[in-house]
Amino acid sequence: MNIAVLGYGTVGSGVVEIINNRGKDLMNKKMSENLFVKYILEIRDFPDDKNKEKFTKNFEDIIRDHEISVVVETIGGINPAFDFTSRCLSAGKHVVTSNKELVAEKGLELLELAKKNNVNFLFEASVGGGIPILRPLSVCLAANNIRSINGILNGTTNFILTKMISDNMSFETALKIAQKKGYAEKDPTADVEGHDACRKICILAALAFGNHIYPKDVHSEGITKIMLEDVAYAASYNSVIKLIGTAQQLNNGQLYILVSPAIVNKTSQLASVDDVFNAILVDGDATDEVLFYGKGAGKFPTASAVVADVIDACNHTDKRRLIGWGPEKKGVIVDYKTIKNQYYVRLRVFDSFQILPTIKANLGDIHLLSRSGATTLELAFITNEYTETELIDKIENIKGAELKSLIRVAKC
Amino acid sequence: MNIAVLGYGTVGSGVVEIINNRGKDLMNKKMSENLFVKYILEIRDFPDDKNKEKFTKNFEDIIRDHEISVVVETIGGINPAFDFTSRCLSAGKHVVTSNKELVAEKGLELLELAKKNNVNFLFEASVGGGIPILRPLSVCLAANNIRSINGILNGTTNFILTKMISDNMSFETALKIAQKKGYAEKDPTADVEGHDACRKICILAALAFGNHIYPKDVHSEGITKIMLEDVAYAASYNSVIKLIGTAQQLNNGQLYILVSPAIVNKTSQLASVDDVFNAILVDGDATDEVLFYGKGAGKFPTASAVVADVIDACNHTDKRRLIGWGPEKKGVIVDYKTIKNQYYVRLRVFDSFQILPTIKANLGDIHLLSRSGATTLELAFITNEYTETELIDKIENIKGAELKSLIRVAKC
Repeated sequence: MNIAVLGYGTVGSGVVEIINNRGKDLMNKKMSENLFVKYILEIRDFPDDKNKEKFTKNFEDIIRDHEISVVVETIGGINPAFDFTSRCLSAGKHVVTSNKELVAEKGLELLELAKKNNVNFLFEASVGGGIPILRPLSVCLAANNIRSINGILNGTTNFILTKMISDNMSFETALKIAQKKGYAEKDPTADVEGHDACRKICILAALAFGNHIYPKDVHSEGITKIMLEDVAYAASYNSVIKLIGTAQQLNNGQLYILVSPAIVNKTSQLASVDDVFNAILVDGDATDEVLFYGKGAGKFPTASAVVADVIDACNHTDKRRLIGWGPEKKGVIVDYKTIKNQYYVRLRVFDSFQILPTIKANLGDIHLLSRSGATTLELAFITNEYTETELIDKIENIKGAELKSLIRVAKC
Repeated sequence: MNIAVLGYGTVGSGVVEIINNRGKDLMNKKMSENLFVKYILEIRDFPDDKNKEKFTKNFEDIIRDHEISVVVETIGGINPAFDFTSRCLSAGKHVVTSNKELVAEKGLELLELAKKNNVNFLFEASVGGGIPILRPLSVCLAANNIRSINGILNGTTNFILTKMISDNMSFETALKIAQKKGYAEKDPTADVEGHDACRKICILAALAFGNHIYPKDVHSEGITKIMLEDVAYAASYNSVIKLIGTAQQLNNGQLYILVSPAIVNKTSQLASVDDVFNAILVDGDATDEVLFYGKGAGKFPTASAVVADVIDACNHTDKRRLIGWGPEKKGVIVDYKTIKNQYYVRLRVFDSFQILPTIKANLGDIHLLSRSGATTLELAFITNEYTETELIDKIENIKGAELKSLIRVAKC
């Protein structure tokens, strides 16, 4: 079976390396045919690469070659990945991608194109890197109504938060270390603002609940505003702050989907997920909670997920794998601001003792938190359940209190 | 698609209930045909059951009915499950089972029979209950060389150990509670002696490494000898005692497979797996460690795994799923006694202070452990790496020391 790999970056080069090293072995164990990389599409030059005879700069070489039945897309981004992927599917070639932006934004069109052309469009590597999650969610948990998915979906932010929690390091310092280690990009926006996690929760929610979810419709908040004070207060509440992507089906069938920092109790399976690791907690009505944990990024973890999809595509050339979803359902996503939740609140106040009665009068029962080094100019607590709108209104009504931090308390 | 369910116990009745309740919904989402339970084979009478018109006591009704293309086997044990399963496969019917004893003992014969008849033999529910593990291991991690698998594979023993660790309860008392809650059988041997975990690690190892592994060839030790003293010493070493099934591929290609209690450091992902939960840690050369966690038993978790296999079988009636392994490889399993490992040792001694120099002279560096309430008649420590044979020999040579407990230190 001849394949082409589009893009020779971290993941693409990992795919080529795994197939070169293990192609024959895979044939014996997992497939009836040998797996062979015939083309690598890449605009850059790699004159000293041992695969140099496979390189092409011309996509037409691949699309015209009838020997190529599976194409791997690891270019990333929407353009030209979308165009290339569409053309491959239309030409009757199976496509495997690790590109979460492509799947989150254009997944529906590509799935429909794949269906029309009776080929596979597979994307296990787009969520959770090397962690098997999309296929288990779609196939192994098929008999469940999924109630919710909560996940630590971005390794970069989890690394930064771990440094803040374990080493009392500021966000800025931790980010610099993450960049130095290659975990964060020079422009870290997509990670630290939650956009990357948002794409992944959209893909998970689409698979679990059956309709395309567009990232633009999902509120996402990053971790740039988290202060060490918040980390300390969370610790006093036997909790840690994690960036959580959440997708829940409400009783009325609507979906509550959100990416935001959250206060996670240490008894949660997600609390001990540290460094660049990812974990996804799926709650099904038959299985209850099932957790998938591992390396959510990196060359070989992600490449191995791509190669597994290639094998699956090769084993299903004549019969499509039924992994996918339908069109978006307008109005299915609730405004997250209308959902009641407990919140962690940190205020700047003129005097914490004097203002406390007013706060209690406005917010009812609160659970006060403490940290060493706090002055009377600061007050932090956990509230009862409010919508974010209600809570912010009530806090704005309290004279002499300025809202410095508001973080939801996770229910996972 | 009409199916038959053999056995109407916990799992079988769960399968019928899920299909009755969700058959139509599954058809819309996951399958092209409706799913319908036509027969339930059961020797007991259920006169008031709402499915009573489906019951039969005659297996011939099922085997002769050409409308039945998928048969679910949830009888358990080898007889008559093996005979029924063989006959179904030979008759060209797909079989899905939750029966770990059947798969561990007769899996190879049944896989070969399935292949011969071009039908599926699927058994996701046989390991880890509702946790997706066999399909992810076989399909999603296909591009990996699996280095090792370590798992908490038996919920009953994990519940008992959790009670011993968290509530300082003796093994006997914890077992009684487990029996009262329905987690342990009246005769708890298969669970507490490690036989159940042994069947599961055999299935995992066969899938991961490619050859049938028979439970009789795998040393398995249970948890009946674990004392609260051992639990306390482990805690002083920042560890917990867990019953771990382990399967590792050694550099020479041989397999080290074992079920035994193990000292697990609290930093391990397996240490926080409590109560009846199961978890399986798979170490692949591309993904590194991936963890699967959830409810390893129970009616609906297990039944949902069975139904997922039924859906997969229905979606692959014309093309077999390639999940399985080949014949056993004689001599591939190393004698566990020849493998070096660190051990936890508890001795009864005449005087711990006086004997310590002799112990150090025999065993070299040891890491002494302490617990509150220990007298000078007791000594516990962690050793350097020894084979079990070497270590027992050395301890037997120490006059005035009697070996009370020997537990391997886990490497996961």
